[in-house]
Amino acid sequence: MTVQAITWAPSGAVRIIDQRALPETHVTRDLESAALVADAIRTMQVRGAPLIGIAAAMGLVTGLRSHRGEARDTFLQQLGEQSALLAATRPTAVNLRWALDRMARAAAETPGDASSVWERLHAEASSIWEEDRAMCRHIGEHGLPLVPEGAKILTHCNAGALATGGIGTALAPLYLAHEQGRAIHVYVDETRPLLQGARLTAWELSQAGVACTVLADGAAAALFRAARVDLVIVGADRIAKNGDFANKIGTYGLAVLARHHGVPFYCAAPSSTLDLSIADGDAIPIEERDGGELRSLGGRSVIPAGAGVMNPAFDVTPARYVTSYIMDRGVLRPPFGA
Amino acid sequence: MTVQAITWAPSGAVRIIDQRALPETHVTRDLESAALVADAIRTMQVRGAPLIGIAAAMGLVTGLRSHRGEARDTFLQQLGEQSALLAATRPTAVNLRWALDRMARAAAETPGDASSVWERLHAEASSIWEEDRAMCRHIGEHGLPLVPEGAKILTHCNAGALATGGIGTALAPLYLAHEQGRAIHVYVDETRPLLQGARLTAWELSQAGVACTVLADGAAAALFRAARVDLVIVGADRIAKNGDFANKIGTYGLAVLARHHGVPFYCAAPSSTLDLSIADGDAIPIEERDGGELRSLGGRSVIPAGAGVMNPAFDVTPARYVTSYIMDRGVLRPPFGA
Repeated sequence: MTVQAITWAPSGAVRIIDQRALPETHVTRDLESAALVADAIRTMQVRGAPLIGIAAAMGLVTGLRSHRGEARDTFLQQLGEQSALLAATRPTAVNLRWALDRMARAAAETPGDASSVWERLHAEASSIWEEDRAMCRHIGEHGLPLVPEGAKILTHCNAGALATGGIGTALAPLYLAHEQGRAIHVYVDETRPLLQGARLTAWELSQAGVACTVLADGAAAALFRAARVDLVIVGADRIAKNGDFANKIGTYGLAVLARHHGVPFYCAAPSSTLDLSIADGDAIPIEERDGGELRSLGGRSVIPAGAGVMNPAFDVTPARYVTSYIMDRGVLRPPFGA
Repeated sequence: MTVQAITWAPSGAVRIIDQRALPETHVTRDLESAALVADAIRTMQVRGAPLIGIAAAMGLVTGLRSHRGEARDTFLQQLGEQSALLAATRPTAVNLRWALDRMARAAAETPGDASSVWERLHAEASSIWEEDRAMCRHIGEHGLPLVPEGAKILTHCNAGALATGGIGTALAPLYLAHEQGRAIHVYVDETRPLLQGARLTAWELSQAGVACTVLADGAAAALFRAARVDLVIVGADRIAKNGDFANKIGTYGLAVLARHHGVPFYCAAPSSTLDLSIADGDAIPIEERDGGELRSLGGRSVIPAGAGVMNPAFDVTPARYVTSYIMDRGVLRPPFGA
């Protein structure tokens, strides 16, 4: 059984798994306002490009519950403010902006009072979630033929159920291969600094009974050299028109290693990750996160104060390194169109 | 000022900096027996290929102090036992075996009673240390022309003063460049799982006033892509006759990245790291360390119990990736001879 990363709470709050606590503790949180959802995205209680889009859309619905009785204009003004708050949380993933734009359009298109608009927003957020779930399933189906019996797959960070509304992007073909009884083995980069590979990917794969092994990011190269990787599958936070894509820091290094060792390298993502407004990866903003994520470890300082720290959350992999893009519409090659 | 990683204590013990406590705490330990030195090597209180050779030689001297009054045969038997204990601590670095073999030869060559043999061992251990200090200096001098004004250097793990008896191997040319007033900047991979880059290299560079920036291992690829690396210098734990060499896990990945981006990649090591008894890197034993080094972090479990862990301490970089070898004898190309 794959994990469910997000749902509605009975109160109308956004119910999430607090991903910071995994794998030790399974903490569920009901976020009762857009501000709390924004905080959860910023602090990476919820993360993963598709999931933060869904969470933001749902967060708007939750946050606007108490404004249903207000005048339409006041309601729309609230929508704009809460949307801006959510949009400002993280810069790289395009799904966040995509989901918020879609919510704004839905509101603008809906006539009537605040309550009617809110109902439409509720339906729109649920659609965004349901469509993501379906996109995950389609990504899985399109990617399935690329994951043969006995395949040894390397992945990075978490592009699984915990990053989406469904069964994941990069992990979706792996879940389906496992469901079909194919014996596969997944190597998981621990993914410093926040260890989403170790903490999240290994956890959700284990929950689903998929065999996996965690390794330090630096150990991946030796796996390639020992011919223990048949294919690499990673997710994406934003894909430019030409196919260049941003994903968790360390992805580009795997792409170079895969190319160097003649191993296929796949990027798996839903259509909502495409940003056709930008020509190539140079235009993707890369989030630089606080150096504290590297400086301290379990409350202990591991970098001397005199040293600097760089902590980019993402890197850009040029399209030429990508064997193909496993998307909900099929296994594709760029350039991407509408 | 560069750091001094090892010295004799007034009691005749081996005085080390406990490198596990850095950079938070500067703990000095006086190891009063060979067993304590072996334990310090196994638990990586002292680490770095040249340094563990020196520590083992000094540990024998310390451990045999109390046997000086015994019969020669009993003394030599003790030497054999303590040497075996020290040799069994870590398998990959050849310097350890090299130093212990040299101590055994010195003992065998020395006539007279146990006390005379012990005096000779004391002198031999001090020579091993002094020679290493000189080798570091020579590595620095030979490597200095490769580190121009303004150079941006990437290094991995710790191949500095804390890994040797002197000013380091990979860091030696950088210390000399800094001494000469060249403005250089060192990028330091944090080096999971034990963070020797973050904790040790950044610390000793900062102590010496050399500008440095720590990054997650996975972030190195983006540095190359942004053309922010002029050269890579790493150390070595064992170099085969053909030039293949073992070094901290993650080194091979940097070698591939350097090759792919047209950046020079240097391996810096003293002659004691050469193992002419093996033809190539396939024969180098690679230490697999306990998975607990990855599984827990600051007392917290970060990998679910259901997932496997692989934790090789080293990888092998084939000679063809190495621009040249910066050694005490000069800047060399393999194959290596006596």
